[in-house]
Amino acid sequence: MPISLPERLLLGPGPSNVHPDVRAAMASPLVGHMDPAFHRVLEEVQERLRHLFGTENRMTLPLSTTGSGGMEACFANTVEPGDRVLVGVNGVFGERMSEVARRYGAEVTRVESDPGTALDVDEMATAIRRLEPSVVAVVHAETSTGVCQPVEAIARTAREAGALFVLDCVTSLAGLPLRLDAWGVDAAYSGTQKCLSCPPGLSPASFGERVLERVKGRSRPVPVWYLDLSLLDGYFGSGDRVYHHTAPVSAIVGLAEALRRVEAEGMEAREARHRAASARLLAGLAPLGFEPLVDEAHRLPMLNAVCLPDTVRGREAALRGRLLERHGIEVGAGLGKLAGSIWRIGLMGENARPEVVDRLLDALAQELAG
Amino acid sequence: MPISLPERLLLGPGPSNVHPDVRAAMASPLVGHMDPAFHRVLEEVQERLRHLFGTENRMTLPLSTTGSGGMEACFANTVEPGDRVLVGVNGVFGERMSEVARRYGAEVTRVESDPGTALDVDEMATAIRRLEPSVVAVVHAETSTGVCQPVEAIARTAREAGALFVLDCVTSLAGLPLRLDAWGVDAAYSGTQKCLSCPPGLSPASFGERVLERVKGRSRPVPVWYLDLSLLDGYFGSGDRVYHHTAPVSAIVGLAEALRRVEAEGMEAREARHRAASARLLAGLAPLGFEPLVDEAHRLPMLNAVCLPDTVRGREAALRGRLLERHGIEVGAGLGKLAGSIWRIGLMGENARPEVVDRLLDALAQELAG
Repeated sequence: MPISLPERLLLGPGPSNVHPDVRAAMASPLVGHMDPAFHRVLEEVQERLRHLFGTENRMTLPLSTTGSGGMEACFANTVEPGDRVLVGVNGVFGERMSEVARRYGAEVTRVESDPGTALDVDEMATAIRRLEPSVVAVVHAETSTGVCQPVEAIARTAREAGALFVLDCVTSLAGLPLRLDAWGVDAAYSGTQKCLSCPPGLSPASFGERVLERVKGRSRPVPVWYLDLSLLDGYFGSGDRVYHHTAPVSAIVGLAEALRRVEAEGMEAREARHRAASARLLAGLAPLGFEPLVDEAHRLPMLNAVCLPDTVRGREAALRGRLLERHGIEVGAGLGKLAGSIWRIGLMGENARPEVVDRLLDALAQELAG
Repeated sequence: MPISLPERLLLGPGPSNVHPDVRAAMASPLVGHMDPAFHRVLEEVQERLRHLFGTENRMTLPLSTTGSGGMEACFANTVEPGDRVLVGVNGVFGERMSEVARRYGAEVTRVESDPGTALDVDEMATAIRRLEPSVVAVVHAETSTGVCQPVEAIARTAREAGALFVLDCVTSLAGLPLRLDAWGVDAAYSGTQKCLSCPPGLSPASFGERVLERVKGRSRPVPVWYLDLSLLDGYFGSGDRVYHHTAPVSAIVGLAEALRRVEAEGMEAREARHRAASARLLAGLAPLGFEPLVDEAHRLPMLNAVCLPDTVRGREAALRGRLLERHGIEVGAGLGKLAGSIWRIGLMGENARPEVVDRLLDALAQELAG
């Protein structure tokens, strides 16, 4: 008996639903990681990722790990013991960045703001000038709170102070326009299971020349062989495709198909689609008593953090369970400090559509009435 | 236009071809990593992996990384700076283990033997007793040379000396019987793209209680947050499935289907099938002038390293290219010191079949005659 899984509408913080064309591409008969036919697909993927990230970086690649491993790659390569690292923390993923940097021996300084609010750009700038860190790291789209962080001014100050600027784009890539080169971002990472609407398993990432120079100038090798950019360069950074580890061929072929869909739509239309879906969701939720956590200026369209009405708060886990079991709809629980008081409703990639929003609103209204 | 890849018969060192049922499972509509329906599949995967590894280890799991990342996980968790680590080196993957251990600060001692030969068990035992290392590491199935390493005596000596014993099972899992618990192996890792006949992207691995205790007793945290067993334990080690990173759902569902196929066949029949395919290949290659690199006692059935006849040696890359382009058959080049002088012919998982062997032999005979 083959494995059978229920059909789900995935409206949590990721994964999001995968288009049948992408699933079919993933299920293509396998080719080898050293096959010229696969290298053509990989080249296309890398070029389209450059476009989406808004960069000319040669080292733009799908890392063979999930988004959290992409975060790991950024700090493993840029940090040496004793380095000063400044991290903006306004949610779980900023927390995680501090923890990861610390494990590589960084002296981490945190600039914090309350979950659901953006980091204060002036406070970040002051801290950068005072600390003169070697790395500044910020989350563009905080998946735990739904906050979109303005990064351009922070990146500029970081660069002026001689720091590398690292940006978490896990939830923003392919949902909001990114301009790594124009903003002055040195390293960025994402995941495939959010607005790209692929299964989880790859971390699209991009590293500029300043990062590669930092790696070259290290006093000791990158501790993680698997993520060492100077070694990955041989396979992902040049046409030679020298073996390092076995690239996850099927996942990359799926990503290629997903990226074609993104390009066919265009980022402008795609962003508008995400914004329209979010607006429709929030308008529909208001009469049910769910209010957005984040002020309008900093609200992510693809990840809607909504405060639960008092009538739902004590039974939110049971209600999520009923949405899943009776309606096949997954919504996300609060994470960290916000557990129990918010839901995270993802409208990512394929799911940022009015009919999807309406299906959720109908199911929710039914359960709240019942 | 959807992505179209050529049909290939994958007879290199991995990946191997994936059964259509496994590809279909991977392409199932996606479910979330926190969905109880997925947790049931994950539980099944973990239980079947325990069976295949021959272990009761609770922490038996598909790591969200390729086989090389599994190697990384073993050393990231067990090694602290200054630790003495003894590595058996008789090929590229033993080399890689020394390099990875060294990056975590280990003082690495190597016991070497020529590529194509097994490590001398007595020499390993003497070195273990003299050095009293905290970790001893060996490759079970050296994918760069086709050597199967007897490990039971080495594991016993390592345990007696108080060392943890780490075993690379990348190419052996699901092709040869493994008995981690009976042999005394503390940590083992594999890859999905060899005898399991899944796409690359996951590293099935297993860690015993002695490893988990070592992690608990570390003086500093595991440097790699992504691979820290004490954190992975929350999601993979208990029924609670506490979020750590987003598990690669589709790849794990594919693995579940592949593991069902392995169990339906049974390891005894599976091993016999691999041995029969290898014998047929070597018998067919002999008249063409290809001789096995490894003596019969230490020969891996799933990875056949064959010395190239003089007539082929200078044009081996061109000949591999013609097998790929004209016949759709991939065979593997030599790696490291053996580049240019051997081929590595994989008959792994789904490909360990007489008709597959005959297709390669026919194509090769045709090209050599032409």
